[in-house]
Amino acid sequence: MSARPRTSAFVGISLDGFLARPDGAIDWLKPFEGEEHGYTAFFDSVDTLVIGRKTYDFVLTMEAWPYAGKRCVVMTHHPVAGHNGERAYAGLPADLLAQLAAEGARHVYVDGGAVIRAFLAAGLLDELTITIVPVLIGVGLPLFGGVELESGLVLEQVKPLGDRMAQLRYRISRAR
Amino acid sequence: MSARPRTSAFVGISLDGFLARPDGAIDWLKPFEGEEHGYTAFFDSVDTLVIGRKTYDFVLTMEAWPYAGKRCVVMTHHPVAGHNGERAYAGLPADLLAQLAAEGARHVYVDGGAVIRAFLAAGLLDELTITIVPVLIGVGLPLFGGVELESGLVLEQVKPLGDRMAQLRYRISRAR
Repeated sequence: MSARPRTSAFVGISLDGFLARPDGAIDWLKPFEGEEHGYTAFFDSVDTLVIGRKTYDFVLTMEAWPYAGKRCVVMTHHPVAGHNGERAYAGLPADLLAQLAAEGARHVYVDGGAVIRAFLAAGLLDELTITIVPVLIGVGLPLFGGVELESGLVLEQVKPLGDRMAQLRYRISRAR
Repeated sequence: MSARPRTSAFVGISLDGFLARPDGAIDWLKPFEGEEHGYTAFFDSVDTLVIGRKTYDFVLTMEAWPYAGKRCVVMTHHPVAGHNGERAYAGLPADLLAQLAAEGARHVYVDGGAVIRAFLAAGLLDELTITIVPVLIGVGLPLFGGVELESGLVLEQVKPLGDRMAQLRYRISRAR
């Protein structure tokens, strides 16, 4: 049996904990773009993406498919176009990880609020890097939205990005 | 006319942004007590507290009044006991700060979710220090709860406290 691949999330949130405005808009991130925050190195380290439907639909609006050369699974109950090799999956995170392990996946990038919460709640997220953007947007789509995890989060690194953003990296212990 | 006193908040929140559980409980902070996080130096630097009703009622359950030697104003529409020199105030933050300035206040510690939000929303909070505790409690009393502030927050310092908590200090520009 293959080892379960490592799973990581890498997200930006407003200081009040939102990934996006209620309609999905991320215009408030604009003033903070361009800051090097380690995303490229992180992205290069993953071989597989597991994303949610909203992330997928957003990515399809981009000029080019941003995940070329990587395995991509969309957690959705509806079909996906599949033009870029992506596939749909509607089961449990644990079963998906077993499938991916059998395919040789080593490091999975988990993205999208609902997908991150599903992996967190299942105890199957190993690392969480959060970039905190210094704005309060008041209302929006939350990153955590109700998930409970009262032990197991260990702060591995915290650093400023320029004079505005802060980046926190947590390791999440599997022993729960 | 006296200069408006400086205003600061110094709070601990769960990683998902809560000050307390829905009933006000802060039992989840217990495993993280004892870490030096700069509170003593901060507390020594203030001459005045402006607190909310919930914070006040909580403080009254403590064996000793923790704000001895400092001016204390409770933002509430109901009477306060006043045994420790504290007084009630039911007006606007701006008017309160003008009063406090006339009394010689120099540095005001603003505490309690509702009071912090009222000062933030009025553009009258100068500094915000947030200690992020690595737990997700799922539901609770939020720190920010709807306040919008899309510019003006400048990250002054970010540091780890031990291997578990992160502390972020923001300066808030008055130009809005």
